[in-house]
Amino acid sequence: MKREGVLYVISAPSGAGKTTLCKEIIDIFPNLRHSVSYTTRTPRQGEVHGRDYFFVGQEEFSRMVAAGEFAEWAEVHGNLYGTSLATLKECRSRGIDLILDIDCQGARQLKGRFEGGVYIFVLPPSIGELRRRLDNRSSDSEDVIERRINNAAGEIKEARWYDYIIVNDNFSEAVEQLKSVLIAEQCRAFRLLQGLAATFQI
Amino acid sequence: MKREGVLYVISAPSGAGKTTLCKEIIDIFPNLRHSVSYTTRTPRQGEVHGRDYFFVGQEEFSRMVAAGEFAEWAEVHGNLYGTSLATLKECRSRGIDLILDIDCQGARQLKGRFEGGVYIFVLPPSIGELRRRLDNRSSDSEDVIERRINNAAGEIKEARWYDYIIVNDNFSEAVEQLKSVLIAEQCRAFRLLQGLAATFQI
Repeated sequence: MKREGVLYVISAPSGAGKTTLCKEIIDIFPNLRHSVSYTTRTPRQGEVHGRDYFFVGQEEFSRMVAAGEFAEWAEVHGNLYGTSLATLKECRSRGIDLILDIDCQGARQLKGRFEGGVYIFVLPPSIGELRRRLDNRSSDSEDVIERRINNAAGEIKEARWYDYIIVNDNFSEAVEQLKSVLIAEQCRAFRLLQGLAATFQI
Repeated sequence: MKREGVLYVISAPSGAGKTTLCKEIIDIFPNLRHSVSYTTRTPRQGEVHGRDYFFVGQEEFSRMVAAGEFAEWAEVHGNLYGTSLATLKECRSRGIDLILDIDCQGARQLKGRFEGGVYIFVLPPSIGELRRRLDNRSSDSEDVIERRINNAAGEIKEARWYDYIIVNDNFSEAVEQLKSVLIAEQCRAFRLLQGLAATFQI
C-alpha cells in the first residue's frame, strides 16, 4: 500500500539519551532514515561529514537560509543547525520515514509548516540524573555542562506541545516506547484511509 | 506516577478478529481490564454471566437506560448492549485502563461524551476474507452470515473517524500493532504532563 513517508521529530535536553535512542530505532525499522542536518559547528572527534552532519561554513549556511533551502533552522549553543527542505519533501513523497533529531526551536518551525508530523520529547528521569549523565560524559567541560543544565530547564518546558513524552529512565523501556510510537503512528486512521478506500469502497 | 485510567474503544465488523485480539492484549497489560457489557441477548454456549456479559432482561435494560446508568447503549442485530457509566468512571479515577469491545454506534456516543479516549477500528484484509472467516465459524447460520457481511460494508465506513485502524491480516502483527497503540498512548504528552510537572517544574 503506497503511503507518504512520516516525519518523526525528536527533541531532548543534552544528556537525555536522544542520540542513542535514535540510533537504536533506526536499526529496527528498515524504512526509517535519520535526517542529516547541516551545521556550522566544528566536527567532534569521529564525526563524519554526510553521515553525522553536513559541516558547512557560516557563509554557505547563510546562503541556504536566504535561498529558502531549510525546512527549519536554529541557533543552538552558538552554532547554526538546519534541515534540508528538499530532503524532507523527497522522503515524504517516496514513502520513506524520516527521523529528525533537532532542538525545540526547529521543531516548532516544522510543526507550523508540515502536517502529519509526529513530535516526541525525550526527558531524563530528573534534573539530578541529567547532571550525573553529563558529568560522566568526558566530552564536555565543566562550564559546558553547567550551560547545558541551565538550558535543560528551559527546554523541558517545551515538552508541553509535543505529541509524546518518553522518560528515558530504563533505556530498553525507552526504546520499546519509541518503537511503539512509530508502529502506532503507522496505524493512525488518517494515514491509512486513502490506501484502504479502494479495498473497502470507503 | 498517579494517572487517570485510559479508555480504549475497539470496534470491528463481526469476523475481523476483535474478540480474540482483545483477549490477547488483556494478558499482556496487567493494568488493563475488559469492560463487561450489559446485554439482552441470549447467552451463547460457554458464555458466563459477569465475565462475558451481564445478561439482563429487556425490562431491566430499559430501567437502566431511563436511570442514565449507561455511558453508551445501542441496538445491534436486534439485541441491546450497554456499558455501565459507574464502571467507566471508577476505572478512570482509580487509574485502571479499560478496553471496550463495542459497536460503532456506542463508540460514537462515548467519543462525544468522554475526553482522552482512544478509538481503534479493526478491519479484515478484505470483504472476501471476512466472508471466509465467517463461513469457517460454525456458530453462525447462513442467513446470519449474509446479514453480517451486509452490515460490515456499512460499519467499515465508520472507520474514518476512529484514531487508529488495525488491519488484521496476520494475527501476531495485529497484536503487535494493538500493543504498540496502547504503549504509545501511555506516552501521550497530555496524559503525562500533570505527573511530570512536579518533577520538572513545568
